[in-house]
Amino acid sequence: MEELRISPADPRGSPGKEQQAAGVGILLQIMMLVLSFVLGHVLRRHRFYYLPEASASLLIGLIVGGLANVSNTENSIRSWFNFHEEFFFLFLLPPIIFQSGFSLQPKPFFSNFGAIVTFAIFGTFVASMITGILVYLAGVSYLIYRLPFVECLMFGALISATDPVTVLSIFQELGTDVNLYALVFGESVLNDAMAISLYRTMSLVRSHMSSDQNIFMVVVRFLETFVGSMSAGVGVGFTSALLFKYAGLDIDNLQNLECCLFVLFPYFSYMLAEGLGLSGIVSILFTGIVMKHYSYSNLSDKSQKFVSAFFHLISSLAETFIFIYMGFDIAMEQHSWSHIGFIFFSILFIGIARAANVFSCAYLINMVRPSHRKISMKHQKALWYSGLRGAMAFALALQSVHDLPEGHGQTIFTATTAIVVLTVLLIGGSTGTMLEALEVVGDGHETPLGESFDANDRYIAPTYEGESSAGNRFKMKLSEFRRSTASFTELDRNYLTPFFTSQSGEDDDRDDIFSDNGRASYH
Amino acid sequence: MEELRISPADPRGSPGKEQQAAGVGILLQIMMLVLSFVLGHVLRRHRFYYLPEASASLLIGLIVGGLANVSNTENSIRSWFNFHEEFFFLFLLPPIIFQSGFSLQPKPFFSNFGAIVTFAIFGTFVASMITGILVYLAGVSYLIYRLPFVECLMFGALISATDPVTVLSIFQELGTDVNLYALVFGESVLNDAMAISLYRTMSLVRSHMSSDQNIFMVVVRFLETFVGSMSAGVGVGFTSALLFKYAGLDIDNLQNLECCLFVLFPYFSYMLAEGLGLSGIVSILFTGIVMKHYSYSNLSDKSQKFVSAFFHLISSLAETFIFIYMGFDIAMEQHSWSHIGFIFFSILFIGIARAANVFSCAYLINMVRPSHRKISMKHQKALWYSGLRGAMAFALALQSVHDLPEGHGQTIFTATTAIVVLTVLLIGGSTGTMLEALEVVGDGHETPLGESFDANDRYIAPTYEGESSAGNRFKMKLSEFRRSTASFTELDRNYLTPFFTSQSGEDDDRDDIFSDNGRASYH
Repeated sequence: MEELRISPADPRGSPGKEQQAAGVGILLQIMMLVLSFVLGHVLRRHRFYYLPEASASLLIGLIVGGLANVSNTENSIRSWFNFHEEFFFLFLLPPIIFQSGFSLQPKPFFSNFGAIVTFAIFGTFVASMITGILVYLAGVSYLIYRLPFVECLMFGALISATDPVTVLSIFQELGTDVNLYALVFGESVLNDAMAISLYRTMSLVRSHMSSDQNIFMVVVRFLETFVGSMSAGVGVGFTSALLFKYAGLDIDNLQNLECCLFVLFPYFSYMLAEGLGLSGIVSILFTGIVMKHYSYSNLSDKSQKFVSAFFHLISSLAETFIFIYMGFDIAMEQHSWSHIGFIFFSILFIGIARAANVFSCAYLINMVRPSHRKISMKHQKALWYSGLRGAMAFALALQSVHDLPEGHGQTIFTATTAIVVLTVLLIGGSTGTMLEALEVVGDGHETPLGESFDANDRYIAPTYEGESSAGNRFKMKLSEFRRSTASFTELDRNYLTPFFTSQSGEDDDRDDIFSDNGRASYH
Repeated sequence: MEELRISPADPRGSPGKEQQAAGVGILLQIMMLVLSFVLGHVLRRHRFYYLPEASASLLIGLIVGGLANVSNTENSIRSWFNFHEEFFFLFLLPPIIFQSGFSLQPKPFFSNFGAIVTFAIFGTFVASMITGILVYLAGVSYLIYRLPFVECLMFGALISATDPVTVLSIFQELGTDVNLYALVFGESVLNDAMAISLYRTMSLVRSHMSSDQNIFMVVVRFLETFVGSMSAGVGVGFTSALLFKYAGLDIDNLQNLECCLFVLFPYFSYMLAEGLGLSGIVSILFTGIVMKHYSYSNLSDKSQKFVSAFFHLISSLAETFIFIYMGFDIAMEQHSWSHIGFIFFSILFIGIARAANVFSCAYLINMVRPSHRKISMKHQKALWYSGLRGAMAFALALQSVHDLPEGHGQTIFTATTAIVVLTVLLIGGSTGTMLEALEVVGDGHETPLGESFDANDRYIAPTYEGESSAGNRFKMKLSEFRRSTASFTELDRNYLTPFFTSQSGEDDDRDDIFSDNGRASYH
């Protein structure tokens, strides 16, 4: 992995000069950030959904990067814009993932938890394998540039990480079904962890090339990481809940101390997991969920308002910055455009792989689910369509340039870059149209999402009415499902909430006030 | 200047391994931060002023650094703790200085503006020259390690940067005279800018060694930088005020956008000044003052509360982190303790130089001021005593290790390190005792500072009653002073406030609600 240089590489430059270059670099970045925010706001106000905020940021980055490339920019300034994977993984990604967990509505997420895990773990595994095998076969048959099999699997893994930012912001804007929202959201957050884990495992397999690494081991290793990270995240979350319950910091003049500590916990969780060799992403996601549900209610009212707004602000800045940064880097990096065939076929292959992921997993899930909760074909199509690739794929591809031999990494990086730009601009721009065409838009818009959840169960039901003629089995399954979700709710209400919070556990509904939108979580 | 490495230097290490090391490094830092906050809180609650928060943080850093030095810590983790001057100047310093300006009470600051500028510019110049000359003379007479004259002046410049954090937090805690507070605060913020500017100029003189660089040119260059930076800062502040006045972002669901933009402006100002080769510190300080006075009142109520708390939080984190970071680095770096004489004499010399600064400037100021506003001897002594050295001197000394030849830079660095540790621990720990001994404590504690300002004019008056026997001249000067401060207030009320804010300019007092303490600016 390349070193993360914050200062330019010339060691003889005078400090004043270097600091000046850094100043100009950061200045440009701030100006692009401001431009993105303002442009995004103007576009949203005019309900122009063909260019969502993320696409606008990416375009701004691309344009400014292109200009900087044409003009004779000083190298010292230019070096400030290189995309550093470590900076991405250590500083930009954690706030975004934490905010995902923190703004999560636990109800639809947990009621779809099985489906989400199936899509994210099994589905992503299937998708990355299919992509890898197809790329390998196409290489063997001289259709495209030929890569070794393990490298194809690495490409398959990194390109299977989907990005939630663009699609979800449009979902929120238009107001879609909460279940669909929970599926897309949950899948894209968890599959990032799966993709990183798969990529790293493949990378290890490649460097050791030992034959005893089989698929089973990969799966076990992933599950180990996943469960370990989840436990670490939940543990940190519960620790913070107890701290804020007993430290007595919720008096007026200690608000700053309270907020400082609250803000440090998520990052602690991320770094704890990374330090233990686990997945920081999974850990911080669960810390976010637990901290929102338990620690949050132990804060004073002012601190509650503050931390909601704080995490929202930080994650918005990080999100926008990532897209600008990515656009700029795409315009500046060396690309090997000779592999246009590779790009074309990989786009085809990831479409096929995503179809295999979504439709096979949905089939499995629908086999288990009671008929009124089956995932409708419309939702499956929307889920398939929502699989655009973003910063995670980009960061892993950039890493592969350092990991793989000359040429191979470049090919993968160029293909990933092209896929990211195309999917963000095309899929991002057409999500609104797609949602309207599939008629999954409109409900849940006026009413708060928490309420429309029950309404949606009824909404989906008619589509599959014909299948559930066995009224008796239907009712049994229904009550079974209700009982299983009720048991967690009861555990939560009777034991967890009283133990971890200073409330009596009867004011469950107050969460909804803050998490109703995620984009406007600060009231 | 050394490259800022966020990742360790070994290029062959696997990415996972490096990320893990980074994780462990950051994890330790977070744990120390949490420990500092908790320890600081416990000490403050027990009114134990001998170990203020900054000293506690420094000690924690020293202890953990010492342990890490003794144990066999991996190099990759260790590299995460090196103090990087660029990281300090670009990311840790700006929020602290902005918060200084943002939490400033304009009234006592502007009414003491002449005195503050005298202390900060003329006084710091005098102090650094005296320190430099004394160190050079002692070197020539073989008392201490001999450094070239220009390097002595560089040392004099960097060691003249005083640090406000520790002293001011105790001032606030104990509640001292607002005028004294404004003097200490204003001087230490502005003299940082002066010290950097002087250091850089001397560094240029040294590398070019051209004889046409005289003291006059240095002064002109400094004034140029100062006025340029101030204009840039004020300009950015006014731009932000107009943006928030006319953009209409103060409606409810745009709070996040509003806060994002507000948060980006200060950093924009800092980087603009640095990019133009000016002083970012001076620029961001004035942006803070202007944004608080004008832009702030154009925000929605919720955003106002949020941004106050946000800047307070960020600057607390940065402050605490700097002291931990410094302590850790002091324990880890190579020091040349052979120059114990150099350390002893420099401490003596900076005491003399600060006395020359404070008492000569106070003499000059008292010549001009009306007798009821003269700086009392008690305040002069308190001001002399408050000159502890902190992060700015440390960062510049670290830079000098790279700028100066082998041995010279090391000597300066070791001496600075010793001075920082001694002054922070000793002066920081005894400030409370000193303030009580000088009897400048107690007033302004119960009443809000804004009100005690008028009370203080009366409070200082009796000390110098004897001198002002010429009652006529006294009254003339008084009314003159009143007119000069009134004219700015009038300009502000009649033109600036109506132009830059959406208020009518009649609610001037509302600022006091938020800026009454600076430690508790979020209500």
